[in-house]
Amino acid sequence: MFTLFFSPGSCSRASHIVLEESGLPYTAHRVNFAEGEQRSETFLKINPKGRVPALATASGVLTETPAILAFIAQMAPEKKLAPLDDPFEFAVMQSFNAFISSTVHVAHAHGRRGSRWANDDSSLADMKAKVPQTMGECFELIEHGLLHGPWVLGTAYSVADPYLFVMSGWLESDGVDIARFPKVHDHFRRMNDRPAVQRALASERGQ
Amino acid sequence: MFTLFFSPGSCSRASHIVLEESGLPYTAHRVNFAEGEQRSETFLKINPKGRVPALATASGVLTETPAILAFIAQMAPEKKLAPLDDPFEFAVMQSFNAFISSTVHVAHAHGRRGSRWANDDSSLADMKAKVPQTMGECFELIEHGLLHGPWVLGTAYSVADPYLFVMSGWLESDGVDIARFPKVHDHFRRMNDRPAVQRALASERGQ
Repeated sequence: MFTLFFSPGSCSRASHIVLEESGLPYTAHRVNFAEGEQRSETFLKINPKGRVPALATASGVLTETPAILAFIAQMAPEKKLAPLDDPFEFAVMQSFNAFISSTVHVAHAHGRRGSRWANDDSSLADMKAKVPQTMGECFELIEHGLLHGPWVLGTAYSVADPYLFVMSGWLESDGVDIARFPKVHDHFRRMNDRPAVQRALASERGQ
Repeated sequence: MFTLFFSPGSCSRASHIVLEESGLPYTAHRVNFAEGEQRSETFLKINPKGRVPALATASGVLTETPAILAFIAQMAPEKKLAPLDDPFEFAVMQSFNAFISSTVHVAHAHGRRGSRWANDDSSLADMKAKVPQTMGECFELIEHGLLHGPWVLGTAYSVADPYLFVMSGWLESDGVDIARFPKVHDHFRRMNDRPAVQRALASERGQ
């Protein structure tokens, strides 16, 4: 039994969806960001980074989305959520997830969490203004290469797909029109139709 | 036979070291950043992101350090460079590498590549001034939790160790005294003594 510590609409949504896809038993614990629960003494004992997602397992707590996604895929091999028997394809999936976490999510974060990297109001405004450009450049790379189609890895669905879905869902608030990227847009709609995605979204709402 | 596209002193050093540890045959191709080779038409065909490292394999090109490191470990299982038979420990390693790529490397990059995320000179100066704080916070987490010691995962050396070594080597230029972090400092010195590390550094110098 796993416990997923999540915040609605955050990148924890990718792990939430993959748990639903996996069929593994889990409970979802909402971390109340509005009340600063991620910085509470109790939560920092679970994840000293003060972030979500965190996945509590019988062996210990895991953090960082790319690690959690691959772990869940390995725990439910019969669901074929990752190319576990092909090191090169597995590396392609890992590469995609690493790009999302270290480049795409980071580009997005400059719009609302710029204070991680600078202090002045003018700097934060400057960062925020550049987000449509940086997110647009990220999605150019995704549209014209990284998203093989119909799924990230081609014909095989994998844990990379929910991670892309979360990022695509942020584009509107980042001032980027998803319609600029037809393959991504189609991917977003097909993801949204998946029952596991709808179950994860309902779980985020506490339903 | 692999080809590693690298730039001396960059994060490609981690992949370079792991290739040396693996014993796998490879050639190293220096990408001349001073001449902007990473933005050349030829290199963008290899890696459209215009970054290093990139690892050319018989199956295709891999990018993103965490993906490359785990892939090399899987290609040389007898060298035990990753806990390949223990999904939880493998996820702990992946989590460490994801933290390095998405948080530590990103914190460092704000000191010299702030123009990725903002335009004004005042913003870039603001970002640069905050690097000692953000890198210091990253290494507090590493020193007091993520680095189990003596190696990142504890008694077992893994591909996470060269990646930490590269980041530790950046601290001085980031205005952070490595001596604040005794476990990290000891790790850095032991890494530096490894023959594979010295061979990779010599390869970076073209020797």
